[in-house]
Amino acid sequence: MEHCVMPKYDVEAVRALIARRRPGYALESAFYTDPDVFRADMDAIFHRHWLYVAVECEVPEPGDALAVDVGTASVVIVRGDDEQVRAFHNVCRHRGARLLPPGPSIVGNLVCPYHAWTYGLNGALKFAEHMGEGFDPSCHGLRPVALRSVGGLLFICLSDTPPDDIDDLARQIEPYLAPHDLRNTRVAHSADLIEYGNWKLVMENNRECYHCTPNHPELTIPLFAYGFGFAPGELEPEGQEQAARYETLRQSSHAQWEAAGLPSRLIEHLDDRPTGFRTERLPLDGAGESQTMDTMAACRMPLGTIRDKAAGGLHFWTQPNSWHHLMSDHVVTFTALPLDEGRTLVRTKWLVHKDAVEGVDYDLEKLTEIWNATNRQDADLVEITQRGVADPAYVPGPYSPYTEGLVEKFMLWYAARLRAHLG
Amino acid sequence: MEHCVMPKYDVEAVRALIARRRPGYALESAFYTDPDVFRADMDAIFHRHWLYVAVECEVPEPGDALAVDVGTASVVIVRGDDEQVRAFHNVCRHRGARLLPPGPSIVGNLVCPYHAWTYGLNGALKFAEHMGEGFDPSCHGLRPVALRSVGGLLFICLSDTPPDDIDDLARQIEPYLAPHDLRNTRVAHSADLIEYGNWKLVMENNRECYHCTPNHPELTIPLFAYGFGFAPGELEPEGQEQAARYETLRQSSHAQWEAAGLPSRLIEHLDDRPTGFRTERLPLDGAGESQTMDTMAACRMPLGTIRDKAAGGLHFWTQPNSWHHLMSDHVVTFTALPLDEGRTLVRTKWLVHKDAVEGVDYDLEKLTEIWNATNRQDADLVEITQRGVADPAYVPGPYSPYTEGLVEKFMLWYAARLRAHLG
Amino acid sequence: MEHCVMPKYDVEAVRALIARRRPGYALESAFYTDPDVFRADMDAIFHRHWLYVAVECEVPEPGDALAVDVGTASVVIVRGDDEQVRAFHNVCRHRGARLLPPGPSIVGNLVCPYHAWTYGLNGALKFAEHMGEGFDPSCHGLRPVALRSVGGLLFICLSDTPPDDIDDLARQIEPYLAPHDLRNTRVAHSADLIEYGNWKLVMENNRECYHCTPNHPELTIPLFAYGFGFAPGELEPEGQEQAARYETLRQSSHAQWEAAGLPSRLIEHLDDRPTGFRTERLPLDGAGESQTMDTMAACRMPLGTIRDKAAGGLHFWTQPNSWHHLMSDHVVTFTALPLDEGRTLVRTKWLVHKDAVEGVDYDLEKLTEIWNATNRQDADLVEITQRGVADPAYVPGPYSPYTEGLVEKFMLWYAARLRAHLG
Ligand code: FES
Ligand code: FES
Ligand code: FES
Ligand SMILES: [Fe+3]
Ligand SMILES: [Fe+3]
Ligand SMILES: [Fe+3]
Repeated sequence: MEHCVMPKYDVEAVRALIARRRPGYALESAFYTDPDVFRADMDAIFHRHWLYVAVECEVPEPGDALAVDVGTASVVIVRGDDEQVRAFHNVCRHRGARLLPPGPSIVGNLVCPYHAWTYGLNGALKFAEHMGEGFDPSCHGLRPVALRSVGGLLFICLSDTPPDDIDDLARQIEPYLAPHDLRNTRVAHSADLIEYGNWKLVMENNRECYHCTPNHPELTIPLFAYGFGFAPGELEPEGQEQAARYETLRQSSHAQWEAAGLPSRLIEHLDDRPTGFRTERLPLDGAGESQTMDTMAACRMPLGTIRDKAAGGLHFWTQPNSWHHLMSDHVVTFTALPLDEGRTLVRTKWLVHKDAVEGVDYDLEKLTEIWNATNRQDADLVEITQRGVADPAYVPGPYSPYTEGLVEKFMLWYAARLRAHLG
Repeated sequence: MEHCVMPKYDVEAVRALIARRRPGYALESAFYTDPDVFRADMDAIFHRHWLYVAVECEVPEPGDALAVDVGTASVVIVRGDDEQVRAFHNVCRHRGARLLPPGPSIVGNLVCPYHAWTYGLNGALKFAEHMGEGFDPSCHGLRPVALRSVGGLLFICLSDTPPDDIDDLARQIEPYLAPHDLRNTRVAHSADLIEYGNWKLVMENNRECYHCTPNHPELTIPLFAYGFGFAPGELEPEGQEQAARYETLRQSSHAQWEAAGLPSRLIEHLDDRPTGFRTERLPLDGAGESQTMDTMAACRMPLGTIRDKAAGGLHFWTQPNSWHHLMSDHVVTFTALPLDEGRTLVRTKWLVHKDAVEGVDYDLEKLTEIWNATNRQDADLVEITQRGVADPAYVPGPYSPYTEGLVEKFMLWYAARLRAHLG
Repeated sequence: MEHCVMPKYDVEAVRALIARRRPGYALESAFYTDPDVFRADMDAIFHRHWLYVAVECEVPEPGDALAVDVGTASVVIVRGDDEQVRAFHNVCRHRGARLLPPGPSIVGNLVCPYHAWTYGLNGALKFAEHMGEGFDPSCHGLRPVALRSVGGLLFICLSDTPPDDIDDLARQIEPYLAPHDLRNTRVAHSADLIEYGNWKLVMENNRECYHCTPNHPELTIPLFAYGFGFAPGELEPEGQEQAARYETLRQSSHAQWEAAGLPSRLIEHLDDRPTGFRTERLPLDGAGESQTMDTMAACRMPLGTIRDKAAGGLHFWTQPNSWHHLMSDHVVTFTALPLDEGRTLVRTKWLVHKDAVEGVDYDLEKLTEIWNATNRQDADLVEITQRGVADPAYVPGPYSPYTEGLVEKFMLWYAARLRAHLG
């Protein structure tokens, strides 16, 4: 039995919407605007799948805690005295008060601010005053939340029966992440941006670079726009040459990086499992070092075991809601957390080596400028799309078979996951 | 088949509300406060009737465009290279992004900001990269919106089958508008005001001057409050004299203006057709020239062919949502655009001769002060009425048979239009 | 027939929620978060019970009026030329405009701002222009609202059939209030605080002092935390001694105060009638005079007939929504007015003798500091609890049999009152 009480929604209506989804096309308006579909998404997707929410280095010491809101849910992540990281629902077992405010805290125990019920870092209720003799503290511990560190990236699942393919994901992806040694990083900067669009528009936006050339002048300095697909028949001779050059570079880079111990080749499981994911190490343009305006490393102190600065950008995506870029000098991680049918929080964190010193080893502006600009641009695109799909005159159009194939895969995954839950 | 997908609402409930409407009385609370009635209004009224939304002089040259939001819909009005003005849904046929932000733009083509699909000013899709060979651009042009210029006032209809009585309206009203030559005007000032009330409260407020004496100290300088009705039996001798004097003035003015080529006599078709309207040229007080604090023209440069400054104020109303005052020196136009059941945008534009220069030919403060003040006063009245009708203790009261006859006609029209759509 | 039209809600669903309420436990999430339950609360509780809303001294003279919003309802309280205080729905009988803005006004008649319908202070329609001969003003008077002054505290009931146990309440409580002579007070300060929680969380918070020690460093200077219950078996020797000392003090104080004409003994009718209430005069710590940081009177001018400053704090609670503290020198009254399922307005008023002069007889900061601080602390607790109970992982926990007995009584009353209305 699931222990969470989700708001009700019209299951039949959502089922009908999925049933008539036209493959290769954007979704109907209701998927982006209907509160019932949003509740279905929260129930079937966000409360039953693994969600990337934080980095292990955010709770480095016993007593370090981090509260993360996921919709109306909230989770406390805390490192215990035994060095284990655990997660609990951020809800007191007495009258339900939040134990910790969103964000980081340092705690000895988890003490409820209301009537001071006191929980250990393992969730057990240690102390509750005035409750009398019949009261059994062992029945009133904090409710645990499934937590999994994948190479230092923390995933939670709000369900009691989390998808077990997280094991396979970890097995496959950890070798890719390992050289960057995320456990020895530090959050240099964190930015929360509310995008005024449904979370699926945020994800669709993230799963293609069709919009990069017209919209991301900064990002396309280090990033090859051709890396995410193009229509070969439409290319001018100059374009064909560029595409061919990119493909050659990608293959030679892969060979060179793998020889140097950096797994690089594409792994793609976007639509064949609950915990969809994709990874590949991609060459960067220019100096090829980092997603910066001059394509050179933003931080002097290299991560982990990587000594060749020009290690490209390892991209790692998960479904439903995260994407990550890992470079030799820094890492950028993103998570998309739905607020309601028309608003999504995108949380971006920039990680550097844990000993890197701001102003000495890196300049914060240089480190963050590309993704701050790119996020802002994407937020604008998501907002004008949310407005458009809410227009009664909107009709879903076709995805490009070349540049939007991964958007379609996201949608196939999404429809399958809704079906798996709603029947 | 209508091509717009409107949100669902409880048709039976709305039908029952209309059926029990008591003639001569204000509407029940639900008409003003219930989201279902609002959705019915948007569907049956705002998506199936002609709406005044802009002036032709706002898109004077090929490539001039104007985006106007109507509820969750948005329409692009654009003048083509062939000088034709056209309207399209402001929704990209790819993934639905808004093509233009609200307000004016100058464009060569209509290029979607997201993935750069490029539409001509006639709506045809000219260019869409990476879509492959199977893709047919001719099936992905912008969806047209019915547009009609009535003497320079632009009306749109979001339905595929717009009411054809717009022809008769144009035939009757264009001679009244023609002397003011709206096509050779310019928007001197535009003001958007959000009124915190249902759009029908905004319209009821506009359709009577019962509230003018207690509320509009500025407007009642040029405007005769008696012009919109009074209870003759209740007038004191002084009032009787004023009323008689006004009636004499009205008739002599009409005769004089019509002789001078200014159609002036009342035409009223408020409750006998889809596109209800009313017009009459009304004398103004004092110098009789304009709706200004000194009743004299605000702009030195006369409009069109009018050479007698004391041409009164031509009022022109349309249903569901516009009203206009045309004088010899300037024009004020108003449109009421519902935002939700409790909020309505009132957009006011002041037009002067296209060659009039601010600070030389007119003073902007003098031009706008009466209607800026009056709009603010009306917004306050609408707000306190919205609050009152949302009170569980509210019961609809009777309209005055003398001063609120045109409010009742608006309501008869409204009920008939809902019935025509809902059955 | 009730004359108010309440929004509809799912009666069956609310009934089912009440039926499965587990005694001794906090409520299920839906009671705090579901708009349907909120509508049921407004209908069954706030529109059918006596609500404390103001103090008689706020309308001391004929023509003094006060408008108070209760949800979407609004009530005008006004003292007539006959010195009688009356209450009316703040809704014009014409088209429904609010007659007065929230807060105090001084009026000759109640004149509607819209079309100037003019009502006497007894609610009769005295004047309505242009309504014609068939119009009967006597059918269009303001709708009265039941009003009752209990020793100077004004209660209204929005129902046409108000609970008649207000008579018994008045009979029992007026002797307790009389020595403080509320009619000869004045509002020294008033503060509106929006708490981001359901009104029942506000009331639960008010009905226990389990949270006082961890949260109210200021309030617990004058207030004995033991006064509202503790688990005797859990007390350390020091605590046992304190508790015994408090009990002795309470009994000796009661005896002494009653001998001096100050009724003090506990009366509790929290769960056996519609108009639940509780009162007791409680000793204060330190000097024992007032709820101030130094426990001494904040105002030099004593209230009413009280000459012993150390008269403790008379607490008086009513259900659904008020609490009061009456001391020898000042009074603090509180009313909780629901705004929606997640927000409640808490209005606090500090009363002093009507002739007391700020800066001379009292210092406003000293007078208000404890409850300003305490309200803020309680608002924070209510907010984190609202967030917690809205979490899908929330499960209602048990109330302490010792410190939360009065919270449980509030809940028994609440469930019984819903049942009485919904069946
Ligand atoms: S709600 Fe946590 S201790 Fe009471
Ligand atoms: S949404 Fe317009 S081009 Fe893609
Ligand atoms: S609404 Fe009050 S007088 Fe018209
Ligand atoms: Fe982007
Ligand atoms: Fe007006
Ligand atoms: Fe408190």
